[in-house]
Amino acid sequence: MTSRERFLAACACKPLDRPPIWVMRQAGRYLPEYRAMKERHSFLEMVRTPELALEVTMQPLRRYPLDAAILFSDILVIPEAMGQPYRFKDEGGIAMEFRIDGAADIARLSTDGAGARLQYLADALSLIKAELAGSRALLGFAGAPWTLASYMVEGGGSETFARVKELFYSNRPLFDELMTKVTGAVIESLRLQIASGADAVQLFDSWGSALPACDYEAGSLVWIRRIVAALPAGTPIILFAKGVGGNLPALASSGARVLGFDWTVDLPTVRSTLPANIAVQGNLDPVVMNLAPDVAAAAATRLLESMRGLSGHIFNLGHGILPQARPESMAAVCNAVVSWPAR
Amino acid sequence: MTSRERFLAACACKPLDRPPIWVMRQAGRYLPEYRAMKERHSFLEMVRTPELALEVTMQPLRRYPLDAAILFSDILVIPEAMGQPYRFKDEGGIAMEFRIDGAADIARLSTDGAGARLQYLADALSLIKAELAGSRALLGFAGAPWTLASYMVEGGGSETFARVKELFYSNRPLFDELMTKVTGAVIESLRLQIASGADAVQLFDSWGSALPACDYEAGSLVWIRRIVAALPAGTPIILFAKGVGGNLPALASSGARVLGFDWTVDLPTVRSTLPANIAVQGNLDPVVMNLAPDVAAAAATRLLESMRGLSGHIFNLGHGILPQARPESMAAVCNAVVSWPAR
Repeated sequence: MTSRERFLAACACKPLDRPPIWVMRQAGRYLPEYRAMKERHSFLEMVRTPELALEVTMQPLRRYPLDAAILFSDILVIPEAMGQPYRFKDEGGIAMEFRIDGAADIARLSTDGAGARLQYLADALSLIKAELAGSRALLGFAGAPWTLASYMVEGGGSETFARVKELFYSNRPLFDELMTKVTGAVIESLRLQIASGADAVQLFDSWGSALPACDYEAGSLVWIRRIVAALPAGTPIILFAKGVGGNLPALASSGARVLGFDWTVDLPTVRSTLPANIAVQGNLDPVVMNLAPDVAAAAATRLLESMRGLSGHIFNLGHGILPQARPESMAAVCNAVVSWPAR
Repeated sequence: MTSRERFLAACACKPLDRPPIWVMRQAGRYLPEYRAMKERHSFLEMVRTPELALEVTMQPLRRYPLDAAILFSDILVIPEAMGQPYRFKDEGGIAMEFRIDGAADIARLSTDGAGARLQYLADALSLIKAELAGSRALLGFAGAPWTLASYMVEGGGSETFARVKELFYSNRPLFDELMTKVTGAVIESLRLQIASGADAVQLFDSWGSALPACDYEAGSLVWIRRIVAALPAGTPIILFAKGVGGNLPALASSGARVLGFDWTVDLPTVRSTLPANIAVQGNLDPVVMNLAPDVAAAAATRLLESMRGLSGHIFNLGHGILPQARPESMAAVCNAVVSWPAR
């Protein structure tokens, strides 16, 4: 069984001897070879240059027995393709070139052709697909519309989300207009990614927990369902809505075949509560990767042990691996998973 | 029925025509009269001077029909009483004077007499108790041991909690030693507060969500249960563990009579899932207080409507009110609650 087959079997909730593993942000700053690349190229240059995106995507796969590659890219390439560029601030964090402030800004956002401006994603995926030669699964991704709209309306990261919430609560028709456009661009991007070889796609609703549970439906889920309905039925969609694990019924109704969870939920409980045809992904605390290899491996083994006998599990962290992670602890976790069950 | 009686009836899950209301951080920067006080006195001076703490505590009660007062204080007065002072950094955030780094630092932490060094809490509560004259409930509070230990070991706020987690995962006996001392000091402080007139006490596990669900028991809950067991059985304890709503079985086993929730859970669902003798508190999104009064009132009314017919609800926000909240929106929310049910 190849890694790719294992990954797709887990998405389909088929019984497996061990779960497949990939790690959010597996190509990232904790790897010396990534930092070396980063000295020669900016983040956005690596994202936009297919050969560089290929190289960064492949870096963790050369070191670790991961079952899936994920395209090296960024969720904010979609606002950028719609005409709202962004940059990384020197002091950290995101700054959009302007923020969406009213109907005129929304009207100016381009939708047709956003796909064409994202051709570099397709080109990178084609290169990676060829390199993988079917051995490992290939994942594409996009930000969920709520999360993208948050950046677009707030003009960057936010602590309170007061501007996007004001739009949501005070002018729902205008909010819906923005979300319709963003959702259309997400669909276009994900169709392109799937057509270029992505075996599955992940939707990051990184700011899903900013919405009250009673408004997660209208603020995020209806738009996610529109995406699910617009993509080819055979391609698994993974919904990772950070901090939303306390609202399981909502997530279960998203239409996504796989739900990703952070570390604040008990994964076996969630697995047993969800319908049997929805797989789960997660949910090791990323911080254990910053600790000693034996500590990290023990935490991974506890998670594996707790999921014993339960199908439909993709092993992952509960959020992206941190820049301070130890490469040798990442190795210890990967080895704990691929050598499971211990004999 | 007085506000105090209403509050205690809600804690006991008795049926009520409307829930009692109080608001986390109700005495705070959104009030012009608080900001005026703050120009003349530092935060810690107000906390440590009973007459000033009385004045700040009473400010929101003069404006709004709140059913409970909460002592104006800070969770970090306990580490300070144990010999680990702190200050607020100019750029925002907390800096402990040093951080706990190994057995020697833990050995130096004082426990006996921490209560005596917290006498100002008792004095402030006595003043407030007299001023309230039994009309409204009076709340005391403390940080939960996990949250306090996080500040103490990290040396302030943290994004990753890597130091306290390293202690937890790599040296459990030493972690337990620290937690035993912190838990003892919390118990001493809460006993003092109850003896001085607190009708109920709230435990803030503000960083509870930093712990993986599978470790919430060993890292936080066992210590909370020790506190519950050590306090007078007649005094309601409210446990507010932010971000832990996805781990309801753990919270339900805490022994606390009331559980506070942030906005990421659906409160009627949680209310119906929990045993009937555990009350719930929450969970309006604080950001609605930053929006127009009609928007804030509509959000409050939706929450009231969703809880119709369910006993054991204390109306509150899902986290502290923000400095940018509009006093008139706070008024609109309070009025929506106390005039409920609409006739």
